[in-house]
Amino acid sequence: SEITSVEDLEVMAEHIDILMIGMRNMQNYPLLSQIGKSSKPVILKRGMSNTIDEWLMAAEYIAKEGNNQIILCERGIRSFENFTRNTLDLSAVPAIKELSCLPIIVDPSHSTGRNEMVKPMAWAAVAAGADGLIIEASSDPKISLTDARQTINLEQMQQILEPLDKLCSLWDKTL
Amino acid sequence: SEITSVEDLEVMAEHIDILMIGMRNMQNYPLLSQIGKSSKPVILKRGMSNTIDEWLMAAEYIAKEGNNQIILCERGIRSFENFTRNTLDLSAVPAIKELSCLPIIVDPSHSTGRNEMVKPMAWAAVAAGADGLIIEASSDPKISLTDARQTINLEQMQQILEPLDKLCSLWDKTL
Amino acid sequence: SEITSVEDLEVMAEHIDILMIGMRNMQNYPLLSQIGKSSKPVILKRGMSNTIDEWLMAAEYIAKEGNNQIILCERGIRSFENFTRNTLDLSAVPAIKELSCLPIIVDPSHSTGRNEMVKPMAWAAVAAGADGLIIEASSDPKISLTDARQTINLEQMQQILEPLDKLCSLWDKTL
Amino acid sequence: SEITSVEDLEVMAEHIDILMIGMRNMQNYPLLSQIGKSSKPVILKRGMSNTIDEWLMAAEYIAKEGNNQIILCERGIRSFENFTRNTLDLSAVPAIKELSCLPIIVDPSHSTGRNEMVKPMAWAAVAAGADGLIIEASSDPKISLTDARQTINLEQMQQILEPLDKLCSLWDKTL
Repeated sequence: SEITSVEDLEVMAEHIDILMIGMRNMQNYPLLSQIGKSSKPVILKRGMSNTIDEWLMAAEYIAKEGNNQIILCERGIRSFENFTRNTLDLSAVPAIKELSCLPIIVDPSHSTGRNEMVKPMAWAAVAAGADGLIIEASSDPKISLTDARQTINLEQMQQILEPLDKLCSLWDKTL
Repeated sequence: SEITSVEDLEVMAEHIDILMIGMRNMQNYPLLSQIGKSSKPVILKRGMSNTIDEWLMAAEYIAKEGNNQIILCERGIRSFENFTRNTLDLSAVPAIKELSCLPIIVDPSHSTGRNEMVKPMAWAAVAAGADGLIIEASSDPKISLTDARQTINLEQMQQILEPLDKLCSLWDKTL
Repeated sequence: SEITSVEDLEVMAEHIDILMIGMRNMQNYPLLSQIGKSSKPVILKRGMSNTIDEWLMAAEYIAKEGNNQIILCERGIRSFENFTRNTLDLSAVPAIKELSCLPIIVDPSHSTGRNEMVKPMAWAAVAAGADGLIIEASSDPKISLTDARQTINLEQMQQILEPLDKLCSLWDKTL
Repeated sequence: SEITSVEDLEVMAEHIDILMIGMRNMQNYPLLSQIGKSSKPVILKRGMSNTIDEWLMAAEYIAKEGNNQIILCERGIRSFENFTRNTLDLSAVPAIKELSCLPIIVDPSHSTGRNEMVKPMAWAAVAAGADGLIIEASSDPKISLTDARQTINLEQMQQILEPLDKLCSLWDKTL
């Protein structure tokens, strides 16, 4: 679950390994500053209408308080196209590699909003050089309380994972 | 070079193997109908602000005149993001696979407008299931009359091609 | 009706007073050049994903052939917002006034796609400095073959026209 | 100045007459809920990539805590067009009038980011039915610490105000 306020931070930081800032809070500066004082790694999701520059500036807000364990997460931007929920901007992956030394991961589930697209877009993300993936999966997607439309089952997850070592090797990475 | 008028069609069709309709003419209906009467294969580039539905309807205009040798080409859409020239919408690849039986290729050169991004986005396109690539390359990119910023050299082309058989095998295709 | 091909031009130019280039043909360069050789005034609609610069460059294509009786027409751009069919970009009105000496008119019918919005957006356009309006009206909108959703009736038209002299006076114009 | 955190709220609410939620915080739900418990009127700016529905849902978050003194403020959305800083979506004015009974005001300064556009877009906003305006003005715009590019001087403000009673009368309003 994502952090949405400074109040939640203290409680959450005790119990979880990685903090996550959702797209709606990418420019919530008091929250960014507070997380910058934490010693936990943080996933910073891109706001759905934020440029790459604004995303890196948001990371800067966290880093300037001392926390540089920042993982950027591309999760789709808003465009006129509406077959997918948002437009997954995979060009952001090489852009971040060019502009920054931060790791970048990709969320093919929330961006597309369609479970049948998770596999191709997950593979595309790793082929583009992404350092990781966040995928919504469940042993029984139909009973997901939210986001069932984008949730894959465990067999589909296995199919996605199978060739990832081959894809990682494109960029001299290992799983 | 792209066809931009019905007048050009007769001359061009004699001398070239595949016709190409550029994004500015995706909804030029008289041109689409005329090309539908040709016996040549045609590459139909997506307009930079056209939805996937509008793209498939443009293909329909060609097909209804009898020419069904149509290859769709994703080459980027307009969004607020401007680090890249256009936003390459790779989700269009699985979308087209779901909605149509037409082949789809991807242009990582014109979409990104940045030669350093051609390799990652070409690989991502094939990993997403694309059936082909159009890449702008030159033995000496610096002297390209146009589009030098996005043109790669032959050595870079070689690097891109090298793992494509591995990527094609993700989708049980061969080069 | 809009011109969509060079072929139509000769026939249409004989019978009509003002030519109109629709948004899908704003970058149809052979058509623009041919119209530049005509002696008829021409309305050049903005493409739905074209920048103001591209729009003025399209006008330049017409003007360089000798026809400078060009009227620009703002008719909405594509954005993520979809309550209206397109997003009417009224800032284009003062932008054109700053960058060009061409007249600019506004189409509140096709842009919004909603007949209840024609009146407020027509008034807003003139208040922003527009030199004219194109409005879809019918004595019986329900039987319109196309675009019924955006067509107003003659009584609504009368309401829109009533205060236009007052609005024109904001910019020292007269009806 | 805009409220950006729950912490600021208590201090600010004592000293100011109207609270203002900036576009970056339109979906900061803990902040919205807290402001819903305040007895102060609140201006809720639209997020630059938020739909009209999402904007009204954000207002709902405030209203459900008991505060229904909510003023919506349109301040521009992100599109591909970049002559203006953001695209002022004046169609949102009649849309809000159709969907809600909340008042709506318009900010022609931050949306366009260009002081020469403030007058035409302010007039257009009122002609479209807006209930008010927020305009950045200064006795000496050149020394503005921020936003000088969009700030008008007091003489320009006077020019904008002069015909507003005439524009308000379009909608049977008085100043």
